[in-house]
Amino acid sequence: MTQDLPADSVGLVAPRKRHFDQPLHLDCGQTLRQFDLVYESYGELNAERSNAVLVLHALSGDHHAAGYHEGSTKPGWWEACIGPGKPIDTNRFFVVCSNNLGGCRGSTGPVSVNPGTGRTYGAAFPIVTVRDWVRSQAMLADALGIECWAATIGGSLGGMQAIQWAIDYPDRLRHAIAIAAAPKLSAQNIAFNEVARQAIMTDPEFHDGHYSDEGVIPRRGLALARMLGHITYLSDDAMRAKFGRELREGKINFNYDVEFEVESYLRHQGQSFVNKFDATTYLLMTKALDYFDPAAEHDDDLSRALASVRAAFLLVSFTSDWRFPPGRSREIVRALLDNNKDVCYSEIEANQGHDAFLMPIPDYLRLFSTYMDRVAQEVGA
Amino acid sequence: MTQDLPADSVGLVAPRKRHFDQPLHLDCGQTLRQFDLVYESYGELNAERSNAVLVLHALSGDHHAAGYHEGSTKPGWWEACIGPGKPIDTNRFFVVCSNNLGGCRGSTGPVSVNPGTGRTYGAAFPIVTVRDWVRSQAMLADALGIECWAATIGGSLGGMQAIQWAIDYPDRLRHAIAIAAAPKLSAQNIAFNEVARQAIMTDPEFHDGHYSDEGVIPRRGLALARMLGHITYLSDDAMRAKFGRELREGKINFNYDVEFEVESYLRHQGQSFVNKFDATTYLLMTKALDYFDPAAEHDDDLSRALASVRAAFLLVSFTSDWRFPPGRSREIVRALLDNNKDVCYSEIEANQGHDAFLMPIPDYLRLFSTYMDRVAQEVGA
Repeated sequence: MTQDLPADSVGLVAPRKRHFDQPLHLDCGQTLRQFDLVYESYGELNAERSNAVLVLHALSGDHHAAGYHEGSTKPGWWEACIGPGKPIDTNRFFVVCSNNLGGCRGSTGPVSVNPGTGRTYGAAFPIVTVRDWVRSQAMLADALGIECWAATIGGSLGGMQAIQWAIDYPDRLRHAIAIAAAPKLSAQNIAFNEVARQAIMTDPEFHDGHYSDEGVIPRRGLALARMLGHITYLSDDAMRAKFGRELREGKINFNYDVEFEVESYLRHQGQSFVNKFDATTYLLMTKALDYFDPAAEHDDDLSRALASVRAAFLLVSFTSDWRFPPGRSREIVRALLDNNKDVCYSEIEANQGHDAFLMPIPDYLRLFSTYMDRVAQEVGA
Repeated sequence: MTQDLPADSVGLVAPRKRHFDQPLHLDCGQTLRQFDLVYESYGELNAERSNAVLVLHALSGDHHAAGYHEGSTKPGWWEACIGPGKPIDTNRFFVVCSNNLGGCRGSTGPVSVNPGTGRTYGAAFPIVTVRDWVRSQAMLADALGIECWAATIGGSLGGMQAIQWAIDYPDRLRHAIAIAAAPKLSAQNIAFNEVARQAIMTDPEFHDGHYSDEGVIPRRGLALARMLGHITYLSDDAMRAKFGRELREGKINFNYDVEFEVESYLRHQGQSFVNKFDATTYLLMTKALDYFDPAAEHDDDLSRALASVRAAFLLVSFTSDWRFPPGRSREIVRALLDNNKDVCYSEIEANQGHDAFLMPIPDYLRLFSTYMDRVAQEVGA
């Protein structure tokens, strides 16, 4: 099959899998004796091995960050930012993105077979943390022969991982880029996650997490969780611009079928998600978000949590993001400034809400490119 | 049973029921041949019948707006604002509040017996609109001998009814007071309602609305809907002040039991609601909200929709209300000013979010009292 792919895309890509026989000790106290990480890479590692960047995905993302899989017309989730001539320029950088542990796209997670039992993990898969992910990503870096990343880069939950890298491995990255992130969830953020979890866990087809043993999936709960997520990813303005109060049939019908365009959009998002994402992975991801709080072990003092980082930071926020509003990024900026760290911060005027970090917004791309140009010059890329 | 009731309360109250044999033609095209409205009243109607005010309830409210029912220690939902010496001063005003049609607390609704079939309406109860409610309330006014309300007053969905009164019966009220309201829902508002409805309707115990025939209730869905509602009633700040990221057991447990205080609060709110509210009423109320849009029949021109009102208006909003933010009230103010109507507007600094309209916030109470004093003087109360 041949495809006409855009010239500024990395083009056809395929994931690879890396098996790890070393045990991984998790924050929860459990140990994974062995595990796999699925990842993709774009661009070429230079001879000095200095031009590698690690891209980190958010809640429902995966390793497929850019380019196209054979036969698919849908590019990776960060196609706007990764490719030749784009902010993360694959002509200059060697880009790595792996599916997080606990994911459902090939890395070891709830849908994987537990080698100890011969059955899928399902509900038995341990709750993992951002720190666990970073630890497993460091093992992947070792396996790929990458001693020091030119940058760790992510949006939302991916940005939290970029920050955790700077805390846990200060000598293994030069730059940390966290976009539309927060130093920890607010009570409201946790509340939305909890409603999503309750939707999944109270679905009668959840079966205490053993739904695959029963040959079912908690479709209703997972769809509700996704619908709710989508509301928090879009701004009120973005929804108004996209849907307004448009009626699908131009009139009110006085029933509970789809009437407004926004209802149609949400139901579609919910239904299509159910066929491509695992409910237990969704639970795990929301828990990793809730638990992320690097200041917690420093008497809630974020400045102390960031005292030992050595990376330079870029923080980016978007004006209409109400999931992680600009103020949340500024908390991180403040804590870095308290420590006299090298930090750039930009608040981008954008009406797309939290999802803005995925979108080709000109100011954002320009700013991101400029910063990555600086990174490239530093590492001779 | 004797109770020590606060001196500034209307004290012990009891609901009354009014039966209507006249048919009520609904916006959906159906007709209710007969119906009941349950209501409470506080204070005394004066000889001129000029001091009556109509209080209108919001989504999960009812006719029990103030005082105490025999044996209960929980006052009515607007105890903060109704009583002797309070903004809606029962020493001066005769206050009426009825349960809306389609409700589940005594007025005809899904849990009532359909006299035509001898069975409960359930899913067969027609979807009602704000206009239908106002029409039924006008019939109640007739029955009580009230030709003209001194004021129609409500918060949130209640505020929408107060506005609809001014549009539909311009000569039957002197003042319309709409607090924390909006001229129509935004796409985001509709989206939240749709997730709540989907939670209820996809609950296997919903049985296409015939759950009472099956002897069950869609508990899971209704609890989810309520949890979600609560997030939108509170501001992010209010949640932070109330719960922060406090852990119930002081530590993370790496499981899906309640860990954060906010999770405990939401689960409790969801569970307790299930025992006191009907799922189909919840669906109906959210639809009435979605459909409310008086500008729609005037080419989306709110100024034209309000051109014929004769009431004076008070609009109040709260700074941290993100469900119906101050800008939504200002849209109404603008449309009234376009028509040179008598309008007062106040934006109250408050961090309680949408729920602020229910709370004894000093600036709010003072402002509300001052306005009601003006109303009382006009009607000789």
